Amino acid sequence: MKTLDTKNFSIPGYKAWGITSGIKKSEKKDLAIIFSDREAAVAGVFTKNRVKAAPVLLDMVRVKSGKAQAIVANSGCANACTGKRGLADARATAEITAQALGIKPDAVLVASTGVIGEFLPMAKVSTGIATAAGLLSGIGWEQAAEAIMTTDMYPKLSIVQEEIGGKTITVAGIAKGSGMIHPNMATMLCFIVTDAVLSAPLLKKALLVSTEKSFNSITVDGDMSTNDMILGMANGAAGNKRIAPASKELKKFQACLDTVAKTLARQVVRDGEGATKFIEIEVRNAKSPVEAKRAAMTVARSSLVKTAIFGEDANWGRIMAALGYADVEMDETRTDIMIGKAKIVEKGLGTGKAAEREASLALKQREVQIMIDLHKGKGSATVWTCDLSYEYVKINAAYRS
Amino acid sequence: MKTLDTKNFSIPGYKAWGITSGIKKSEKKDLAIIFSDREAAVAGVFTKNRVKAAPVLLDMVRVKSGKAQAIVANSGCANACTGKRGLADARATAEITAQALGIKPDAVLVASTGVIGEFLPMAKVSTGIATAAGLLSGIGWEQAAEAIMTTDMYPKLSIVQEEIGGKTITVAGIAKGSGMIHPNMATMLCFIVTDAVLSAPLLKKALLVSTEKSFNSITVDGDMSTNDMILGMANGAAGNKRIAPASKELKKFQACLDTVAKTLARQVVRDGEGATKFIEIEVRNAKSPVEAKRAAMTVARSSLVKTAIFGEDANWGRIMAALGYADVEMDETRTDIMIGKAKIVEKGLGTGKAAEREASLALKQREVQIMIDLHKGKGSATVWTCDLSYEYVKINAAYRS
Repeated sequence: MKTLDTKNFSIPGYKAWGITSGIKKSEKKDLAIIFSDREAAVAGVFTKNRVKAAPVLLDMVRVKSGKAQAIVANSGCANACTGKRGLADARATAEITAQALGIKPDAVLVASTGVIGEFLPMAKVSTGIATAAGLLSGIGWEQAAEAIMTTDMYPKLSIVQEEIGGKTITVAGIAKGSGMIHPNMATMLCFIVTDAVLSAPLLKKALLVSTEKSFNSITVDGDMSTNDMILGMANGAAGNKRIAPASKELKKFQACLDTVAKTLARQVVRDGEGATKFIEIEVRNAKSPVEAKRAAMTVARSSLVKTAIFGEDANWGRIMAALGYADVEMDETRTDIMIGKAKIVEKGLGTGKAAEREASLALKQREVQIMIDLHKGKGSATVWTCDLSYEYVKINAAYRS
Repeated sequence: MKTLDTKNFSIPGYKAWGITSGIKKSEKKDLAIIFSDREAAVAGVFTKNRVKAAPVLLDMVRVKSGKAQAIVANSGCANACTGKRGLADARATAEITAQALGIKPDAVLVASTGVIGEFLPMAKVSTGIATAAGLLSGIGWEQAAEAIMTTDMYPKLSIVQEEIGGKTITVAGIAKGSGMIHPNMATMLCFIVTDAVLSAPLLKKALLVSTEKSFNSITVDGDMSTNDMILGMANGAAGNKRIAPASKELKKFQACLDTVAKTLARQVVRDGEGATKFIEIEVRNAKSPVEAKRAAMTVARSSLVKTAIFGEDANWGRIMAALGYADVEMDETRTDIMIGKAKIVEKGLGTGKAAEREASLALKQREVQIMIDLHKGKGSATVWTCDLSYEYVKINAAYRS
């Protein structure tokens, strides 16, 4: 597998672009289109929030056909909690896009992100779609990625290539998301496209596997959004022999998808609202992989742990306290904790000032590794989060103003 | 029931005091003793965190006897994650206190709060106990309440009186806690004492009932501590006829206990780390009372909701999003939300700019009421929380330094 530069990349059969339609007051980009020149297999993973935005409700039905040809996405307005009018707006957005692209309306998927409870300004959306459709480009991915940003600081892109059955196939994706990030949903917006040939059910299976190890292994603030989705499209332009279930080709494809999903998920955490640190939390030897993940996520979600890391304070007691309420089998007197390379806790006890100094040094880095060994079994998991800073509060206190 | 002024109150048969022993670097008060002049019935509710501090482990065993005569509590050091040495220190703390007071060692309960993973400075503790024991006073409750503070801004006290069976009985309490506050545990330190005559099992039952409606209905940051406990003592000095189970006397006593516990719990939220707003969240007509409470607590815990309220922004979409992931039966199109007196959401939809302006005004107050009607059943619950401010981050980033 080869990781490519995300600058001006292209993928056979796809075009993309992003423009300013005026949905955002800031005049930043807010509308993106992704278009495949032929019908593509499609799969989606959607938020588990019971309150689902209109585009989520629409797409959940549409992906069942297994086929799609375009995605239209806007930022600045979530089109959530907007009732029947919202659903009609989402449908109209797809229809306008279909007309502009000359394809069938139900071949268009819709995504929105932004403020909840406001209606889409359909006149702006309509004009914006026409403009974006006219500008579609094989190398328009960065523009598209910018147009789905909300509080994101930078666009998120990833691309890899692999030889599968003698053909070069490409997997690439864009994502947005820096708040309301918590697992057990198709966290934020993420669109992954490939030119590989594979069926929609197989794409869905692969997408679920990747999601578990990427977007469902990150947390920023523990809030779960109404709008988030991961969409995958496979248009077959690579002309490889159709990837079969349980094949070594599928393994290779899965590795590509995993890499793109993980890279994007890590970018989302790195760009977490107000984040100053990127934190990796690994739990080893939990009773089961499920317990390992639960323990890691509980530590990752703790406001006290996150503020301590923001303050570069090796306050391991907060990690122990979080493990204690994580609802996993754990025994304080067996638990070891490492911060960076410093073993700061051994069998539940602090190892002293030297280790704490070393841990404090590790906490001064932008990237922080925490390893917890529960010595209870063979389950392990790794998750990613960021610290909790003044900026997080500032961004979220002033979000709508 | 009569609510008394907390200034210089006293309760028959009890003495208390708090002093500076030097455990805290700040030279603030850090050691308190509560003493009953006769053996009292005792009951406790303890943290559900699997990582339990040494004093919690000690007291969990001691309260089983149903009898105690004194509580010694320190702040500045949690004596948690301190292994065998920590347990020995907790035992020694009780023994030194017992000697100073001339009572049996196992009649002393111990409580600690502060930094996890550090050992108690036993020489200072020992001297401190002797000093505090010598100063014990019938009106020393404010000193005791000050001595158990950590990041608290002010001491928390409450006292009520009631006529029960022709006698005046008093129920009073002190509490501390402003971070690591989350339910399903005996949140923070709280000591409630009464001169009423009732058995330890009945006291425990009453304490559990009060806890559910008070300390288990508040959240500050969602973190659950290793050290927290509620202890209740009833020394019988009022000389009333022993309160019987299921009696009207018990009802009256329960009302007193509820009031003291609720008053203290609300003080804890009001003094939440960095809090600028006191927020009451009521959920009505959930499928069950359990679901009502889960929904209310999920909204109360949402960082996005808490930062929006800090920013005085009537961003009701975040409340809807939190309800959507609260794991309760809910239907967006049936849900109403009120902020203050403004019905900002009706049947899942925003009610417009006028209501939003009214809600924004309500959010400018120090006390904010949010009412959510799920229209799904008959369950209701009320919980209390505070907003999430810059100060929360500041306090917790710098806690140990």
